[in-house]
Amino acid sequence: MLIICLECDPGSASKRLNDLVRALAATGHQVLQIEARSDCTNRRASIHFYCQDSHMTQVTNTPYEALEVGQTASYSKTVEERDIQLFAAMSGDHNPVHLDAEYAAKTMFKERIAHGMFSGALISAAVACELPGPGTIYIGQQMTFLKPVKLGDTLTVRLEILEKLPKFRVRIATRVFNQNDELVVDGEAEILAPRKQQTVDLTVLPEITFG
Amino acid sequence: MLIICLECDPGSASKRLNDLVRALAATGHQVLQIEARSDCTNRRASIHFYCQDSHMTQVTNTPYEALEVGQTASYSKTVEERDIQLFAAMSGDHNPVHLDAEYAAKTMFKERIAHGMFSGALISAAVACELPGPGTIYIGQQMTFLKPVKLGDTLTVRLEILEKLPKFRVRIATRVFNQNDELVVDGEAEILAPRKQQTVDLTVLPEITFG
Repeated sequence: MLIICLECDPGSASKRLNDLVRALAATGHQVLQIEARSDCTNRRASIHFYCQDSHMTQVTNTPYEALEVGQTASYSKTVEERDIQLFAAMSGDHNPVHLDAEYAAKTMFKERIAHGMFSGALISAAVACELPGPGTIYIGQQMTFLKPVKLGDTLTVRLEILEKLPKFRVRIATRVFNQNDELVVDGEAEILAPRKQQTVDLTVLPEITFG
Repeated sequence: MLIICLECDPGSASKRLNDLVRALAATGHQVLQIEARSDCTNRRASIHFYCQDSHMTQVTNTPYEALEVGQTASYSKTVEERDIQLFAAMSGDHNPVHLDAEYAAKTMFKERIAHGMFSGALISAAVACELPGPGTIYIGQQMTFLKPVKLGDTLTVRLEILEKLPKFRVRIATRVFNQNDELVVDGEAEILAPRKQQTVDLTVLPEITFG
């Protein structure tokens, strides 16, 4: 994120803004979102550019021959309102225990919970992006759901290579913990590891807006 | 979906459009999306209303005592561009094999494929919305990924009650087929079935737009 203050002159601010977006693009930054806040009393407007550095979107995998039993990796994400809505829209599961605070308050959970398979999606992202990373082919996944995941929880997927099998097959422990270090999902993946090391450019998504 | 043709007069078209949205709302239809296509040569504009019938947003579950071994249910969804982008945004897995047609063409898959766990999300939605439905608590899920799922494939999750265990636990076969009736994901869920029958109002999501 980059914050810049401009004089409170709409015409000149607009021109400078365009110049800045172009300058950022030229240095490999893709502007994902712009937020403008004006403070005309002090003749200042702050412009927040949420940028994605194109250099940060490359991922290098770990091929089969470089994987070692005991090797670990982790992948964290905080469960936001937006994530639960995206999961609901994508899967079609609009159950109010995930989406409606008033309804959820009357359930045994007392508050909104994430869809159980949201943790599954994070496990798959951890395997596909962290260890072994791009080029991995999913063979199987087993999951045991131990505790509910609440809105605002920060989940960490911890991966550990358990066994290297013939024909590039690998067993990986896939455990998900919350911010209190409680195990919320236990499980195991079986994958086909990549045969060769490769570096891929992760794709930048179009901006998604709600409402 | 409802398609209506209007005269190509922006002023009158806009007024008629508002009247129509109000009329649809009065009959219990929530307008989710409007697409307008104008054909001024023939003085016609077609307006596509994507509606959700509010009567379709209630779901009644099947409680433990009413479940029978052999009972089945199914849940279908076509994998659209939008679904793959939603999954990528929600999970953080931006691998180009899912999102970049040019990159995917050079892989063993020859074209873009859905994230493997997208099928997992559909399985969880089938269990949570169809059988047993709302109030179900996920205990575990095992999946074996057998074939890739391509953009445009229509997936059908077929559920079958396998076993009723003590303390409301139930084993369910969770198999996912594509439009050619090929088994793409085999697996099994273990759940806590709802104790009581209930009917819930599924939550309507805010509209999600891309780009």
